[in-house]
Amino acid sequence: MLDVCLLGTGGMLPLPYRWLTSLMVRYNGKSILIDCGEGTQIALREKGWSPKPIDVILFTHFHADHISGLPGMLLTMGNAERVEPLTLIGPKGLTRVVGNLRVIAPELPFEIQCVELGPEGGDFDFDGLKVKAFKVNHNVTCYGYTMTLDRIGKFDVTKAESLGIEKRFWNLLQKGEEVSFEGKTFTPEMVLGPARKGIKLTYCTDTRPTASIKENATGSDLFICEGMYGEPDKLAKAKENKHMTMYEAAELAAKAGVKEMWLTHYSPSLNHPEEYAKEVKKIFPATVITKDGRTTELRFTDED
Amino acid sequence: MLDVCLLGTGGMLPLPYRWLTSLMVRYNGKSILIDCGEGTQIALREKGWSPKPIDVILFTHFHADHISGLPGMLLTMGNAERVEPLTLIGPKGLTRVVGNLRVIAPELPFEIQCVELGPEGGDFDFDGLKVKAFKVNHNVTCYGYTMTLDRIGKFDVTKAESLGIEKRFWNLLQKGEEVSFEGKTFTPEMVLGPARKGIKLTYCTDTRPTASIKENATGSDLFICEGMYGEPDKLAKAKENKHMTMYEAAELAAKAGVKEMWLTHYSPSLNHPEEYAKEVKKIFPATVITKDGRTTELRFTDED
Repeated sequence: MLDVCLLGTGGMLPLPYRWLTSLMVRYNGKSILIDCGEGTQIALREKGWSPKPIDVILFTHFHADHISGLPGMLLTMGNAERVEPLTLIGPKGLTRVVGNLRVIAPELPFEIQCVELGPEGGDFDFDGLKVKAFKVNHNVTCYGYTMTLDRIGKFDVTKAESLGIEKRFWNLLQKGEEVSFEGKTFTPEMVLGPARKGIKLTYCTDTRPTASIKENATGSDLFICEGMYGEPDKLAKAKENKHMTMYEAAELAAKAGVKEMWLTHYSPSLNHPEEYAKEVKKIFPATVITKDGRTTELRFTDED
Repeated sequence: MLDVCLLGTGGMLPLPYRWLTSLMVRYNGKSILIDCGEGTQIALREKGWSPKPIDVILFTHFHADHISGLPGMLLTMGNAERVEPLTLIGPKGLTRVVGNLRVIAPELPFEIQCVELGPEGGDFDFDGLKVKAFKVNHNVTCYGYTMTLDRIGKFDVTKAESLGIEKRFWNLLQKGEEVSFEGKTFTPEMVLGPARKGIKLTYCTDTRPTASIKENATGSDLFICEGMYGEPDKLAKAKENKHMTMYEAAELAAKAGVKEMWLTHYSPSLNHPEEYAKEVKKIFPATVITKDGRTTELRFTDED
């Protein structure tokens, strides 16, 4: 299960009642944050979630509205007496950018490991949660992220019994481990059905629509995407500033065949993004014009 | 007249519903900001005041809760198409700190001039508003600030007439300029009464009580001072972290003979600072336990 909270939905600058776009994902005791603009630590506290257990912060790019909250977040984590190391992942230059920002957060009780992405992105595995960074198209180097939880096949009791595997080994096989017993070796594949549908989340913001987004978002349970402008006449502006309109995001969602799309990263000029819901839903019905703090739990299909 | 707004009242970290301590002063079309922590630009917008006309930002010190909002503030000023140069004043190292923070705000449509204070502080004059920085006692180099508007004496019509000065010169003399006329020179002193009481504001935070604060705050109309802790048993903690309790601030206010004191920079652990009002007012009755956005207009005594 993934616990997902879109802490903020703003772009460019934080507003009263609209925090900057940032996503917190909790999984199996781990917490991953994507982007950390000015005020993200306040949004997190407002949600009632703690910054202390954040294991990883992923950055899409280095525009201030996506990273300006980092020094404050680090200090708040430090004040909470965190000692576990923290991993930061982002575009090339991350070490330099973080080093510069830490001029006002020089002393922390935990280590920071900066991982710079390659030109096309990168792949990571956090305790079974697979994170992939993929290149998008903004006016500075920028990445989208997918998070995937794979799910193994169902345990086939009949098969296990017919192979004469004792019950005490079933759990190990179910967890994907091999079992050797009385000179025989049993592999998980021998007792597990075909892999079942897992969970997939895609997050991308500050980009024009790209083939990489369609490709990577394909089959997502939740696709979180920028919808900077709702006014149809802002398409030219979106193109100029390398952003997306809500309609372009909806077209991407439809092409990628995602289950649900959350729009975010609204322009500060967009006072009532929900006004465009009707038109956007004509393109992709399962669109949510989110507000700050939108939360969901992504579960395996038959998981209660 | 000085328009004064205490944008936030928090210390250490920004909280939902409590911005970090920052003061905005407007005078004669100029705007001066003291400190700019994470979220200060949001507090300013909530107040309905614009960041665009800020001429000067004064920094007390370089702890993140007093400067972490600078990159975002600069970008927002830039997005508002500000082109006038901006002056930043703060402790030694300001140029380096600002340079590092600007890694995420490298391109701005206006110039920034950094002025580093000397060991004991410095004196500045902005269009007649005198600003003085004075050293206080924190665990890093830290300064308090006074802002003073002097007021000349009253124009003495009888004297002016008896000296035979034509009416058309009265206004110049009243503005402090000398007038030469028919071989005679008239100075403002000849027609002005003794200097009248001006306006004085003192701001200090993140410091132990010091003689410098008492001396500089003396005679202030408004003394804005940290009251980090209200719980009487937090004195030791205040001493250790080089902060002040509300009671220490009240003692300073009493000794300095200020007209009114606003407490600010509350510890995040202090949920209800107003609970200590009664005890603090026993020491200094004209104490206000402020909330975010507290505003006043400081006027000359007989000014309407």
